[in-house]
Amino acid sequence: MRMYDLIMKKRNGGSLNREEIDYFIRGYVSGEIPDYQVSALMMAIYFQGMTKEETLQLTLAMAHSGDMLDLSGIRGIKVDKHSTGGVGDKTSLALTPMVAACGIPVAKMSGRGLGHTGGTIDKLESFPGFTTGLSEERFIRNVNEIGIAIMGQTADLAPADKKLYALRDVTATVDNMSLIASSIMSKKLAAGADAIVLDVKTGSGAFMKEEKDAVALAEEMVEIGRQAGRNTIAVVSDMDQPLGYAVGNALEVKEAIDTLCGRGPEDFLELCLTLGSCMLIAGGKAEDPKQARKLLQGVIEDGSALRKFAQFVEAQGGDAAAVYHPGLLPKASIVRPVLSPRDGYIAHIACDEVGTASLLLGGGRQTKESEIDLSVGLVLQAKVGDYVHAGEPLAILHANDESKEREARKRFLDAYHFSRGPVDKPKLIKGIMM
Amino acid sequence: MRMYDLIMKKRNGGSLNREEIDYFIRGYVSGEIPDYQVSALMMAIYFQGMTKEETLQLTLAMAHSGDMLDLSGIRGIKVDKHSTGGVGDKTSLALTPMVAACGIPVAKMSGRGLGHTGGTIDKLESFPGFTTGLSEERFIRNVNEIGIAIMGQTADLAPADKKLYALRDVTATVDNMSLIASSIMSKKLAAGADAIVLDVKTGSGAFMKEEKDAVALAEEMVEIGRQAGRNTIAVVSDMDQPLGYAVGNALEVKEAIDTLCGRGPEDFLELCLTLGSCMLIAGGKAEDPKQARKLLQGVIEDGSALRKFAQFVEAQGGDAAAVYHPGLLPKASIVRPVLSPRDGYIAHIACDEVGTASLLLGGGRQTKESEIDLSVGLVLQAKVGDYVHAGEPLAILHANDESKEREARKRFLDAYHFSRGPVDKPKLIKGIMM
Repeated sequence: MRMYDLIMKKRNGGSLNREEIDYFIRGYVSGEIPDYQVSALMMAIYFQGMTKEETLQLTLAMAHSGDMLDLSGIRGIKVDKHSTGGVGDKTSLALTPMVAACGIPVAKMSGRGLGHTGGTIDKLESFPGFTTGLSEERFIRNVNEIGIAIMGQTADLAPADKKLYALRDVTATVDNMSLIASSIMSKKLAAGADAIVLDVKTGSGAFMKEEKDAVALAEEMVEIGRQAGRNTIAVVSDMDQPLGYAVGNALEVKEAIDTLCGRGPEDFLELCLTLGSCMLIAGGKAEDPKQARKLLQGVIEDGSALRKFAQFVEAQGGDAAAVYHPGLLPKASIVRPVLSPRDGYIAHIACDEVGTASLLLGGGRQTKESEIDLSVGLVLQAKVGDYVHAGEPLAILHANDESKEREARKRFLDAYHFSRGPVDKPKLIKGIMM
Repeated sequence: MRMYDLIMKKRNGGSLNREEIDYFIRGYVSGEIPDYQVSALMMAIYFQGMTKEETLQLTLAMAHSGDMLDLSGIRGIKVDKHSTGGVGDKTSLALTPMVAACGIPVAKMSGRGLGHTGGTIDKLESFPGFTTGLSEERFIRNVNEIGIAIMGQTADLAPADKKLYALRDVTATVDNMSLIASSIMSKKLAAGADAIVLDVKTGSGAFMKEEKDAVALAEEMVEIGRQAGRNTIAVVSDMDQPLGYAVGNALEVKEAIDTLCGRGPEDFLELCLTLGSCMLIAGGKAEDPKQARKLLQGVIEDGSALRKFAQFVEAQGGDAAAVYHPGLLPKASIVRPVLSPRDGYIAHIACDEVGTASLLLGGGRQTKESEIDLSVGLVLQAKVGDYVHAGEPLAILHANDESKEREARKRFLDAYHFSRGPVDKPKLIKGIMM
């Protein structure tokens, strides 16, 4: 078999079979097939697409290119959750204790964030002493004993995807639906869960700007999961404005805690209930969404979800005092409102620009080496459809540096667009595919 | 400027401007832009094509990526000739002394061949002592004194094209008309001639299998030459069967000598007269094809073209005795006919298979390091449209090894297809573009 023939076949509109895809992935990971042939193949795929069967085989080949986690030591149906990412997306923080409190074992491997804010692990480091450096044995014991554990990505999961994604990133071959779907699903399959719930974001703050693209991606991933024998459900949700109000690491932790206490933002709670219902149904803890939502609301009302969160933070070495006293979380020195320049309805929020404002404050990483300032960020005071008067706050900025504050403030104001007439609030849940 | 943005622009159907193309070519030659980004761009060009302006700019950027030969020390209008290559294509051997005898200075840089037979330099080494290792000074003096010199490719001509072609060759991005045109023309522009005559082959033994593709390539190259300020003429000619009868190095030298003596194959002579006319007109030695053909036929009839050939071989250290006594050329030990298995008209000759038969005998290079056997090859006895009886020879094989002879014979026979009814002889000259 020659890589040249595979490129030619795809270029001419043919389909690669399983042997050919295995050959290409194995050769690429081993270094026998050079980057320049792979980037040519990726561009040919960009133009010619891949069939469902090719996408499945690529996903499986990448999933098996490294370690396949064995979670069989954990009792019960393991349900993983993945978000395609957005601004103010603190879902994992609230959702995992909620479902764990309902009896779904949460065994998560997480990464650090590169982008507007940190990843889940960065956010959890708002609790002094918290660590993800667990042995595999301890990790599994924690899940069995308290229902949740989060581990830093130590295993060599889907190295083919890692290498391929880095190449696609610099050769303008990222935005192909099948390649995106196989990239996400290869890691999920390798991570070992029995069922997978996907949160596919769409809108100005998401990778998929258009809803139809998000729907297509969701459908493609559900199909891959199904064919790979994992129960897979996808929720397509709005990211045309930030999720909830808080954007920034400790600020998002606080909003997650508020939500676990029953006083979270409506949209964020709704997303947690929707995704949580999917997880409970996939995990066999509920028969239907109605029953699932009742269970999830129950663990908020009776405080067991909040306690589960505290228990989890403590079990991984963190000081859980801040779970009950969020005033103890990292705090910025400058806390200042951004005032509305005019009267009107909020017509549109350029979501990625709000994310960039938080990044400029120091809340995210611009490069892998950047240090994150956990305390900074912003808390929205008005979202799409709300009416504001001139001089009323649009957001509260949390900063530690005057010049960064000025820069972020300017960026933030540019993100807001007003209308004289009323504007509908966007629909949060666009669809559920299973 | 970022290479990523150029890939994205082309991928999305945009056109690259001159600055962008210069940036890409300079960065690629210097090694700052990696192969994997360039191969992605090439694949995007394969799908999206290039405008005439982009093709011109790419050609110019590649032509200027290395040395630009200065032939101003040579008196007269320098006319270069280039063939896209085929089986039995010994045109340069006969054509250059013909036009030189008519007063067109021939200053050629030639390479060695990789393929069915050797290149022009390999063939000329059939004359003992012949060398292309001339100093630039001696090269120019020879052209001025005797009208012809051929030099091995010592100058660093169009290194960008060299690097790019090697990459395209292994990433299935060779067959795009604009890329092929710019590859050929960049070298021709750098080689410094005032006018360029192109022989674009089409048919089963050519790179361009389809006549319409050959015509499109010819038109694209003529347009580039025109825009670059070089008088450029393209002849589209048949390569659906070997040119002339001889295939193999010394055998082709003999056929070229026969042609200079006025007893060459009809089709080969016709091609020399057609290309020669274009060169004479471009070089200002003739007003029209009629006058040009008369001049060319004159230098054959009066023996001056043959004498010019001998003079040229001697001036570059070769023993020219074989020019007048072709029996002195390298000879194979086994000379044996291939007999026709049946009666019938020759309907089709798989031209590239005939080339492969010669290669199998040892007449060409399979790799850059291969040694060529100058004596081997084959001489056709019947071409398309001819009638043969079973047992009559289709060709005479010249071999030095029994097992190679058997292999080549089999290959050769498979190349011949017969018909009961008469078959038209193919038209040699398909068109002339200027």
